[in-house]
Order: sequence, then C-alpha cells, then structure tokens
Amino acid sequence: MLTLYHYPFSPACRFVRLILAEYGVRHELVLERHWERRKQLLAMNPGGFLPVAVENDGPPIVGAGPILEYLDETRGYAQGEKRLMPDHPDRRAETRRLVEWFLQKFEDEVIGHLVHERIYKLDMPTALGGGAPESAVLRVARANMRHHMRYIEYLTGTRNWLAGDHITFADLAAAAELSCADYLGEVPWAENDHAKTWYARVKSRPSFRPLLGETVRGMPPVPSYQDLDF
Amino acid sequence: MLTLYHYPFSPACRFVRLILAEYGVRHELVLERHWERRKQLLAMNPGGFLPVAVENDGPPIVGAGPILEYLDETRGYAQGEKRLMPDHPDRRAETRRLVEWFLQKFEDEVIGHLVHERIYKLDMPTALGGGAPESAVLRVARANMRHHMRYIEYLTGTRNWLAGDHITFADLAAAAELSCADYLGEVPWAENDHAKTWYARVKSRPSFRPLLGETVRGMPPVPSYQDLDF
Repeated sequence: MLTLYHYPFSPACRFVRLILAEYGVRHELVLERHWERRKQLLAMNPGGFLPVAVENDGPPIVGAGPILEYLDETRGYAQGEKRLMPDHPDRRAETRRLVEWFLQKFEDEVIGHLVHERIYKLDMPTALGGGAPESAVLRVARANMRHHMRYIEYLTGTRNWLAGDHITFADLAAAAELSCADYLGEVPWAENDHAKTWYARVKSRPSFRPLLGETVRGMPPVPSYQDLDF
Repeated sequence: MLTLYHYPFSPACRFVRLILAEYGVRHELVLERHWERRKQLLAMNPGGFLPVAVENDGPPIVGAGPILEYLDETRGYAQGEKRLMPDHPDRRAETRRLVEWFLQKFEDEVIGHLVHERIYKLDMPTALGGGAPESAVLRVARANMRHHMRYIEYLTGTRNWLAGDHITFADLAAAAELSCADYLGEVPWAENDHAKTWYARVKSRPSFRPLLGETVRGMPPVPSYQDLDF
C-alpha cells in the first residue's frame, strides 16, 4: 500500500493523485497541513513541503518530481499505451521540461500565490500567517497568469497534447495547477480557446473526478469548475 | 556531438559539466549570458534560463534536471560501477530529492543570491541590473548558508556520500553549488568538518579540474579555492 501525505488544494499533490489514479495505484491519503510543520512530516522531509509518498515500509519519496519518476519506474512498464512518459529520450526531456515549467515556474509566478492567498490563508491560524488575501500579490499573480495562458494556448494550438501527440505527465502537471485556479475562477478561458478545449479533455478523465468533488470550507467553487462542458 | 549552452559561474551549468566529464561525453561549450535574452536562446528555451543542451540536430534539452535524466538514460547503462544514478527506485528517489534540494532550495536561498550579487552583476551592464552587490541580500544569503551547511554536515557525517554508500548526481549537484560560493570565500568550512572532507574528495576528481581553473575577470578566487587540501 502506498500512502500519500497531501493537501487537497496543493497543485503538486493533485498532480501526484492524478498519476496514482491514471496508473491504478491503490493508495491512502493522509491530510497534512504543511504550515503546521508536524514533527512526523519534518522527519520524512526536512524541507517540510508536500507531497511525500511512502510505500509499505519503504523510505519517504519526497517531492512531485521524484514521486513521478518513482511511479513511472515501478509501474510505467505495465501501462503499455497508457504510459505517461514517452519512450524516446528527446520526448522524455520535453515532458520533463514541461512538468518543471508548470510545477515550478507556473506555480512560483501564478498558482502558488493564488492558492496561498485565497485558500491556504483561510485554513491557517493568524499566528502562522492566515488571514485576508493581499491584493498586491493577487494583482501580480493575475498579470503573470495572462503570460502563462498565452504559452499554454500556443502549445495546445500547435500540438495534440502539451508535450506532443500523446498525453503525458506534462498534461497532468499543467491541469493540476490550473484546476486550483479554476476553482477560484482565476483562469481567463475566454481568451484562450485551444487551452480551454485541451483542459476540458483532461478534466473529463475519470482520474480528475475526485478532485472536482472537493471543496474549500465556506467557499464553493465557481459554477463552471465541475462542469465538463464549461 | 553535444553542445552545452552555459555560463561558467552558473551552478546548474557546472553540475551538467561535471556529469559530462564523469560520463566521458564529448561536447562543446557555448558561453551564454542569459540576461541578454538572446533570440536563439529564447527559441530553444522560452524560459530563457540555462543550461540548455543540444545533441547533433536534436531538439533542445532544457534545464539541469531533464539534462541529468537524458544523459543517464542515454549513457548511464554503459558506466557500470561509475553510474551516478543508483539502481534501486528508493535510492534513485533519494538521489533526485537531493539534486532538487541543492539545485533549487540551496540555489534559491543561498547560492543564487551570492553568485548574482557578487559575480553576475560584475558582468551585467547597468541597464540590465549590473552594479554593486546589495548588502541586505548578501546578509540573508549568508544567514541561510549556515542552516544549509548544517544539513550538509549532517548528511556527510552519517553517510559515505550524500545519498548513501556511493557517489551520485546528488554529490555533483551540491559540489557544483558550493564551488561557486567557495570561489568567493563564502563557505564556512571551519565549522563543518565532515562537509569539508567530503567536498575535498569531490573537488579532487578530474571532472572538477576545468571548473577550478576558471576565473572571474578582476576578481581572483580566495587562495583555498584551487587547493585540493584546503
């Protein structure tokens, strides 16, 4: 059995949950509020961030990148056509580039700020940084969002999936990040048709369903969030 | 032939150069000042960061993480005992966790600031942000350095190499980052004996020699930088 320590609106955790569902890996989820810096979390990951996975009595597998590679190394070979990592080294490099792009750059410049300000801070005690969102931070994140959406629009307008002809980890990484902003109504879909059509395809996958059912206490999603034909 | 677009005092670029030397990959280096945002660089990597590798007429391989995996996938099998990625998925995850730790966390909190303020800004025109280092930034980086060194001291005090019994990509990532700060005399070795002994071992490898010979114009390294018994 694999245990995933996660937080529901952490995009990197959502990314790993999508992989687990796509690869059919039996697992249990442990909710972790990483800002509490629980001793057990720090013992597994001195960096204190999520996600962390533990398989049976094995050592902790720390961070979305290492977990992706671990799951692909231990389960990918059995997926056949459904494997989320291409075979050719060049295509693998492109997949990994885009996974890093979305989980790091998109996260740092856009989604991390939106989620922190508008969701995490609702759940954090004031002493640990909870409270009202800072509008200056949101303004910068929203400006950056437009640039990132143009790149996603370009990729989805020129390729079938983000990294090429087939769905890969890159699509799940981008969609996991976008899903958190989409909950908040922060994605400018109207200006980005190709991106919207691509996201509707990813969002319609059975692996996505559990994510779409989760809600933030006291803040329901925008109406289009759960709508597969938004 | 593999071409690496790099900057000599970029830790991530040094990391890739160490891998190329350890794996015996014939290559040529192209010096890139990434702050110039040269069109050809942006066409290869819309993020505009280094390193970028191109093999023959293949597509660009972007970023230290994807390049590491690419080189290991295409050359690792032929390295036998000298392979820098362990065989077991658990050990591979630990290697990747540490590579990310050093190339991202250590870079973002410590080394990136030191290198940017004290080296890059010497080489950058004023209009692009060049000039004197900001002492407030250096102060924070130096305070963070002490925490990171304690972690390296802990790892090297309890393990033969950073990720376990054998040298891995993790050692090269950490040493590449440290080497840039060491050039500047910014590493508190005196308080960290195990780390110092470990670094002396990495620094003595033939793959390290070309890095130790490079200098910043107008700013020679501290005397111990090139000394293998520092």
